[in-house]
Amino acid sequence: MHQKNSWLLPDGIEETLPTEARHLENLRSQLLTTFTNWGYQLVIPPFIDFLDSLLVGSGHDLELQTFKVTDQVSGEMLGIRADMTPQVARIDAHNLKQQCPTRLCYAGTVLHSRGNPLESTRSPMQIGAELYGHSGKESDVEVISLMLEMLAQTGLKNVHLDIGHVGIYRELSAQAGLTAAEEAELFDVLQRKARPELQELMTTYAIDAALKPLFLKLPELNGGEAILAAAMQLFSTANNAVQQALTELIAVAEALKTRFPNLTISFDLAELRGYHYHTGIVFAAFVPAVGKEIARGGRYDNIGASFGRARPATGFSADLKLLSALSKQTFLYPQRQAIFAPCVDDADLNEKIRDLRANHQIVIQQLPGQIGDAQELGCTAVLELQHQHWVIKPLA
Amino acid sequence: MHQKNSWLLPDGIEETLPTEARHLENLRSQLLTTFTNWGYQLVIPPFIDFLDSLLVGSGHDLELQTFKVTDQVSGEMLGIRADMTPQVARIDAHNLKQQCPTRLCYAGTVLHSRGNPLESTRSPMQIGAELYGHSGKESDVEVISLMLEMLAQTGLKNVHLDIGHVGIYRELSAQAGLTAAEEAELFDVLQRKARPELQELMTTYAIDAALKPLFLKLPELNGGEAILAAAMQLFSTANNAVQQALTELIAVAEALKTRFPNLTISFDLAELRGYHYHTGIVFAAFVPAVGKEIARGGRYDNIGASFGRARPATGFSADLKLLSALSKQTFLYPQRQAIFAPCVDDADLNEKIRDLRANHQIVIQQLPGQIGDAQELGCTAVLELQHQHWVIKPLA
Repeated sequence: MHQKNSWLLPDGIEETLPTEARHLENLRSQLLTTFTNWGYQLVIPPFIDFLDSLLVGSGHDLELQTFKVTDQVSGEMLGIRADMTPQVARIDAHNLKQQCPTRLCYAGTVLHSRGNPLESTRSPMQIGAELYGHSGKESDVEVISLMLEMLAQTGLKNVHLDIGHVGIYRELSAQAGLTAAEEAELFDVLQRKARPELQELMTTYAIDAALKPLFLKLPELNGGEAILAAAMQLFSTANNAVQQALTELIAVAEALKTRFPNLTISFDLAELRGYHYHTGIVFAAFVPAVGKEIARGGRYDNIGASFGRARPATGFSADLKLLSALSKQTFLYPQRQAIFAPCVDDADLNEKIRDLRANHQIVIQQLPGQIGDAQELGCTAVLELQHQHWVIKPLA
Repeated sequence: MHQKNSWLLPDGIEETLPTEARHLENLRSQLLTTFTNWGYQLVIPPFIDFLDSLLVGSGHDLELQTFKVTDQVSGEMLGIRADMTPQVARIDAHNLKQQCPTRLCYAGTVLHSRGNPLESTRSPMQIGAELYGHSGKESDVEVISLMLEMLAQTGLKNVHLDIGHVGIYRELSAQAGLTAAEEAELFDVLQRKARPELQELMTTYAIDAALKPLFLKLPELNGGEAILAAAMQLFSTANNAVQQALTELIAVAEALKTRFPNLTISFDLAELRGYHYHTGIVFAAFVPAVGKEIARGGRYDNIGASFGRARPATGFSADLKLLSALSKQTFLYPQRQAIFAPCVDDADLNEKIRDLRANHQIVIQQLPGQIGDAQELGCTAVLELQHQHWVIKPLA
C-alpha cells in the first residue's frame, strides 16, 4: 500500500471542517424543519441501489454520472445514487402507496462520477422536496413557493426564477411524428441551443412544413413576459396539447406573480438542459453572484410507472453545500460560547458540568498535562471554585 | 434496461420511511448536540476517497468490506468508506493540525460490501466522537463517559460495558519476539478464541517457555473484576510494557466505577475482534435485548502518522440506525399535529398559514380536486373562516 500523500482527496471530493460543518448542519436542520412545517415528511433513500432502478426514466447523462460497482452478494450491478428524486418517487409509488397527495423531503450526499464543468464538486449534498398525486398547477406553484422559501431562509436576495415547460417541445415532436431517435437528436440540439444544426435538422426531417417554423423559433422564445404573447400567436397552429402546455405555463406564472410580486421571472420555452425525466413545468433559480442555477425542479409525471404505480409528480432540489456556502456570506448562526472546566475529580464539579451541558452549554474539560489552555481551546469562560461553589468566570 | 421488480433493494440495503426517518433525524440531531455540548466539533468526511487513504492502518477485514471503483477522472482506485474513524484521524492530522486536544464528531452512512453475519444491514449510519492529542487515561474515560451518555439519551437501560486492552497482547508478542506473520496468526486464533489451535501454536513457536503460559491463559482472563487480580499475578513475570497496559486498564476501570457506580463492567484481556487499528484500551457496550455490541471504541494512537502527524487518539462509534430502532421501543419524540388549510386564494389565509409555519406548526394546504381529506392526510385540525378571521378548529 503506498501511503505517500495519503491525505490527498480525489478531484471534486471535499471534507468539511468544523466551522463549515456546523453551519451546514444548522442550515440542514432549519430547511428540513421548514419542509416539515409545509407537510413534507422526511425519507432516507439508500446510498447504493440496483443500477437499473436508479436509472429508471432518466437519460444517458445520469448513467454516465453514476459510479457503478458489482454487488459481491448478488452479482448484480449496483450504482451509487447520482440523483435522489427517482428513489423518492419509488418510495411514493411502491412503499407508501397513498391515494391522497404525498409530500416527501430528503437530504443526502450524491456522487457524480465525471463531475460537471459547471460544478466544482462531484459530491453535492442534495436537498429537496417532492409532491406526488396531484397534476394541477397548484402543486407546481406549491413546490416553487417552497423552493423560494428555502432560498429566503438561506439568506439569498435577488433570486431570479427561470421557468419553462418541456411539454411544449415534447408535444410538438409528437405532432410532427418524430421518431424516438429524431426526438433525442433534436432535444440535444435544442439543449445546446445550436441554431445552425437546428436549421439543418429541419431541412432533413420529413415533417409538416407548417411545424418547421415552430421548432426554428423555439430557441428565440426566451425572456420576459412578452414572449408568452409571442408564443401564443406562434403556437396558434399547433395542436391542443402544445397549446395546453403553454396555457399551464402562463397559469403558473400568473399564480407566482400574485404570491411573489417582487420576484423576477424569465421564460425559456426551449430550456431542456438537464431535465431528464421531466414532463411539464420546469424551473430553476438563480442569484447574481453565482454563474449557474442554485436550485431546480419540475414536473415528472410518468416516473412512478416503472415502480408499479404512475402518479403525477412535481418537486425541486438543490445542493445544500452550495446553499450553505452562499448563506455563510450573508449570515452566521450565533457562535456558541464554550466554558473550560479544570481537571479536578470533584463530585460537585461533575454535577455542575452535567447541569451546564444539559442546559445547552458547551463545557470542555481539561485533560492532565494537555498542551494549550482554555483560550487555545476557544473557551471564553472557566469554571472556578469560589466559596465552595463552582462558578462561571469570563476570561479577560 | 430490465425494469421487472425495479422496486427491489439489494440485500442489507434499506430505505427509511417517514415515521422512522423523523425519529432517526431527531435522535441524530439530539446526539450531535450532546457531542457539541461536550466540546466535540462536527466534521463531514467524504463519502468516497482514495482507497489507500481509506485503508491506512487498518486490517484485511476492512479492505474486504470496502466497495471499490475506478475513478474516471484520475484513473486511481477509489473506495466507499466502510469506517469513518480513519478519515476523521486524517482531518485531525492533516487539516486541523492543532497541538492542543482536538475533539471531533461525525455522523454518516458507511457501506459494507460483504455485510457481516452479526449485522442485518450493509449500510449502517455511523455516528461517533474522537479525541486527539492526549494519551492519558482521562481521555479514555471521557470518551467512554460520552458513549454512555449517548446510550442514556437513546433511552437504553441496563447497559453493560466490556473493556480490554490490546496492548497486553501486542506487548506480550513483542516480548516473545514473534514475527509479524506469527503475530497475525496468533491474533486470528485469539480473536476466534480457538483454544486447541492456540495450544498447537504454542508448541510450534520457538519462544521463551516462561511466556507460553501467559498466552495460553489469555483467553481465560475474561469476566468480573476478579480477573484483574489474577492477571496482575500472571503477568508479574511479563515485561514492563505488558504490566503498564494492565495498570492502565485497571486505572480506567477504577475511574469509570467512581463515575458510574451502577454500571456493570466486564473485562476481557483476549478481546481483539474487530479492533483493527487499536493500540490501547478497547471497549464495547451491550444491552440485554441485542445479541451484539451496540457501540464500540478504543485507543488508536499511531494512525495519524500515515497522514503526516502521529497523535494520541481515542474514540467510539455506533450505528445510528440501530440506536434509533432501539430507542423507538423506549420513547417516541412527540408527534407534531398538522393543520389542514383549504384551497382558497385569500391573502389573509396565506398570511395565517405563513405565520403558523413560522411558529413551528405543520400546515398542509388542500390541492383542488385532490383525493383524500384532512384526516386522511393525518391532520387533527382545520383552518376555517369565522367572522372574517381564519381560526384553527380541531377535528372531531
